[in-house]
Amino acid sequence: MAEPSIQTPISDGCGQSCAPGAGLDVAAAERAAAVFKALSDPVRLRLYSRIADCDGETCVCDIQDVGVSQPTVSHHLRKLREAGLIDCERRGTWVYYRAIPTALAPLDALRAGNQTTH
Amino acid sequence: MAEPSIQTPISDGCGQSCAPGAGLDVAAAERAAAVFKALSDPVRLRLYSRIADCDGETCVCDIQDVGVSQPTVSHHLRKLREAGLIDCERRGTWVYYRAIPTALAPLDALRAGNQTTH
Repeated sequence: MAEPSIQTPISDGCGQSCAPGAGLDVAAAERAAAVFKALSDPVRLRLYSRIADCDGETCVCDIQDVGVSQPTVSHHLRKLREAGLIDCERRGTWVYYRAIPTALAPLDALRAGNQTTH
Repeated sequence: MAEPSIQTPISDGCGQSCAPGAGLDVAAAERAAAVFKALSDPVRLRLYSRIADCDGETCVCDIQDVGVSQPTVSHHLRKLREAGLIDCERRGTWVYYRAIPTALAPLDALRAGNQTTH
């Protein structure tokens, strides 16, 4: 089905539906969108889900077999880290990654919205 | 801090950290990434959060004042619909949108991972 066009000026409104709140404000939307963007690549998401699947930290040696080159893995891990979703520490030869659960907090606002009743 | 390079072949492993499960499989990661991509634009996310903030449906007339043109609003709503996050119905002059809560299920998979203990 083609997207219905939005033809009518908003001067009056329909008066028929739930009048929503303001939703996310601009700053909150920008923060949450950045988190979603970091999770919007399938390979990056698989890497993140493997890290998040651990209660503690996991060695890069245990997560990098996702079908892409090591530099690509490194690139994706950097993006996840820049988004605040993971942190890492080098110890000796290996780099250890852990998920930062609070990084998903901006996503709770969407859940809350879905559960609100009016 | 610069991203530590991953220098070492994966032939043996470090033997020190949580050995994660497989994480999301490829198909699940692709589905989830598509949902997250749809939510990775701040304006699109604000539109979605306004729709999701309603228990039922909301008229486009009530959500489109997000600081962009009507064609841009229409473009973003189409992307949200293509991702399965919202549905819509035209009745007379107006188009009514509702959120599809199950579309956020991929978020639960990440949450579950974060909450797993080993």
